[in-house]
Amino acid sequence: MDHRPGTTSRRGFMRAGLAASVALPAAASMARGQGTPDPLITEVQDWARYSGDGVDATPYGLPIQFESDVIRRNVSWLTADTISSINFTPIHQLDGTITPAGCAFERHHSGAIELAKPDYRLMVNGLVDRELVFTYADLERFPRRQGVYFCECAANTGMEWAGAQLNGSQFTHGMIHNMEYVGVPLKTLLAEAGVKPEGRWIYVEGADASSNGRSIPLEKAMDDVMVAFKANGEALRKEHGYPARLVVPGWEGNLWVKWLRRIEVTAGPVESREETSKYTDTLANGVSRKWTWVMDAKSVVTAPSPQVGITHGPGPLVITGLAWSGRGTITRVDVSVDGGRNWTTARLAQPGVPMAMTRFYLDHLWDGEEMLLQSRAVDETGYVQPTKNALREIRGENSIYHNNGIQTWWIKKDGSAENVEVS
Amino acid sequence: MDHRPGTTSRRGFMRAGLAASVALPAAASMARGQGTPDPLITEVQDWARYSGDGVDATPYGLPIQFESDVIRRNVSWLTADTISSINFTPIHQLDGTITPAGCAFERHHSGAIELAKPDYRLMVNGLVDRELVFTYADLERFPRRQGVYFCECAANTGMEWAGAQLNGSQFTHGMIHNMEYVGVPLKTLLAEAGVKPEGRWIYVEGADASSNGRSIPLEKAMDDVMVAFKANGEALRKEHGYPARLVVPGWEGNLWVKWLRRIEVTAGPVESREETSKYTDTLANGVSRKWTWVMDAKSVVTAPSPQVGITHGPGPLVITGLAWSGRGTITRVDVSVDGGRNWTTARLAQPGVPMAMTRFYLDHLWDGEEMLLQSRAVDETGYVQPTKNALREIRGENSIYHNNGIQTWWIKKDGSAENVEVS
Repeated sequence: MDHRPGTTSRRGFMRAGLAASVALPAAASMARGQGTPDPLITEVQDWARYSGDGVDATPYGLPIQFESDVIRRNVSWLTADTISSINFTPIHQLDGTITPAGCAFERHHSGAIELAKPDYRLMVNGLVDRELVFTYADLERFPRRQGVYFCECAANTGMEWAGAQLNGSQFTHGMIHNMEYVGVPLKTLLAEAGVKPEGRWIYVEGADASSNGRSIPLEKAMDDVMVAFKANGEALRKEHGYPARLVVPGWEGNLWVKWLRRIEVTAGPVESREETSKYTDTLANGVSRKWTWVMDAKSVVTAPSPQVGITHGPGPLVITGLAWSGRGTITRVDVSVDGGRNWTTARLAQPGVPMAMTRFYLDHLWDGEEMLLQSRAVDETGYVQPTKNALREIRGENSIYHNNGIQTWWIKKDGSAENVEVS
Repeated sequence: MDHRPGTTSRRGFMRAGLAASVALPAAASMARGQGTPDPLITEVQDWARYSGDGVDATPYGLPIQFESDVIRRNVSWLTADTISSINFTPIHQLDGTITPAGCAFERHHSGAIELAKPDYRLMVNGLVDRELVFTYADLERFPRRQGVYFCECAANTGMEWAGAQLNGSQFTHGMIHNMEYVGVPLKTLLAEAGVKPEGRWIYVEGADASSNGRSIPLEKAMDDVMVAFKANGEALRKEHGYPARLVVPGWEGNLWVKWLRRIEVTAGPVESREETSKYTDTLANGVSRKWTWVMDAKSVVTAPSPQVGITHGPGPLVITGLAWSGRGTITRVDVSVDGGRNWTTARLAQPGVPMAMTRFYLDHLWDGEEMLLQSRAVDETGYVQPTKNALREIRGENSIYHNNGIQTWWIKKDGSAENVEVS
């Protein structure tokens, strides 16, 4: 075969084209188009004939037009308006672990505000030796830390308490993102102010109209919480709290206060609206559990799933999904194709990262029959993700938050999928 | 202090505002604005008075308008046109390790082409048991792998062979990105085709007009090379090779063929234009080194640097940068503020990740005097990043590629910075 630098032998292409076959691992090898010339191989295409875009075309790039359906989506009937609402990450279309900022879920209580760095102030007050106000430029002068963490809304999967509701992993499990955050440890700022001995909690507020105030025990505040200003390398997006937000690893997203404006050191919790009438878990007897901050181990098969069914016949099928735990690393994920009767341990794409998403894969040989597809996460504490019914037995059906039950997708013979429950 | 759920006591804000001071670690504490009311604290601002954007405002989001200067840039005089050129990642403005796809460097040989998934074909031919053509849908059925890798152009820092040329880390070191790739191991596809015993190399080509053909030893191809279709969770961007590119961990970016269309198994290297007249290193005596694929350990201080000088007076200063090695993990980075006379070991933000970028920080107490700022990376093989002059002694000054010498920024008393060399 003749190789001319920078070009390809057309003769070579044609010869190969005539021999073209689609190959897949042994058991499912499908001789498709064998012997039929494929014009995409035998003909020189326009993209090989003409030059493309120059490097000045997109100083800041967006996804290619063909991916215009990989977007955040909201559910109009879920909330009364869009300024106090949620949109969902298209987890069914993503792979790997990092969530691109452009389609990472948002939850606002009074809309995403625009707050320039020169206008930013962060106050630390209350039970401190000296009350302080930091500018954005001040924050940049403190020692920084970096870490990949998931941020999950406590209400993620919340509709499913009432049974299978929303048809797609984007909607059942998409109130989550996983980004690499950089910021200043909160303990550094608190040390600067000097926490008085009677200070046992902090109360954190955002600069938006809702203020979204929440109480956090000082122990957590002095552990791994940080005031972050970068996500996935770049400045936080407006909708993620630009220029600075709180990152509270492993704990519910509502605590990750955006446009962070104030941290008050207090003797006790404030019992704000956001931690009394909201973000508590009402049990069957009407009593509400509160301070349910930690997101327990959870997982979901992202594909195949209702929005991304199987588009090919029997044979090799990549079953993939995400797992995460607010209590540390994911150590194992099991997958069932028969509604939880039999389990196969999936392959983790990387060793578990504490309080970050882990990608799992199961390389399955699909027989073309129906499946009841489930995944079950295990974390480093030994905790095993429970079934939805096991959760209901303990918590009743009045809850909105903290539904980490096992999800089931009914995969049909035609490859389409549906959200179902198995008893 | 009175806490009303969802709001903030205005009285509390005013009191704190009167006591406001800017705090920084002990030695540099600057009492700025003490006793002067700050309207950003004492007055209720518009962003706390009115609602912001709803969750339907940006299905796919972009950076906030204030960050409009965080973009890829090209250098017009560097190449004759923009379709065969480079743009540079704004590494001086980023933090952490992940490069957002929107501003991750590009290098094209005939422009970025638009190739839809249904039009995509990948041929494997040459010394194989059966020549194969894969569609994009076929690729999705093979077992996947995930990994964060840096992709560095061999010409990164290439202008600096002639002495300090370009004024900013974006331009001296920005021909690089670091993304989380997901794809199919190339060895899986080659195994499907069956490599004949006489096959010792592969020749890889892109679907663009340049085809950008390169030879890779089979040993590397069967090791960690992958055919990737996702970067940072989502589909590759058009300019990064949508829908599929080669990922060749630790090796020069030119081998990471975009819009990958063909892999030919060959007995020997092809000696294409891209590996004879280009991507070789011409020594002082006119002889060229070839097959210089591996990117040796390298680092750069990203900030402060010429494009992002110090904007404050003496006191705490975060010195930060990036380090990477094509031979494995970064184990140590040293920083000098006096042009290499004395070195302090920097703090790595995370343990080194093989063939991925590592972020380092040095929390420095700046005395307000001039600095000659340098960083020096050490990798797991014990290799120490050399000075530029040490490289020139061995390689002469005819080279374009593989300049991994230590970079120096001259930080002036006014905080501005300049690209210089020290002898």
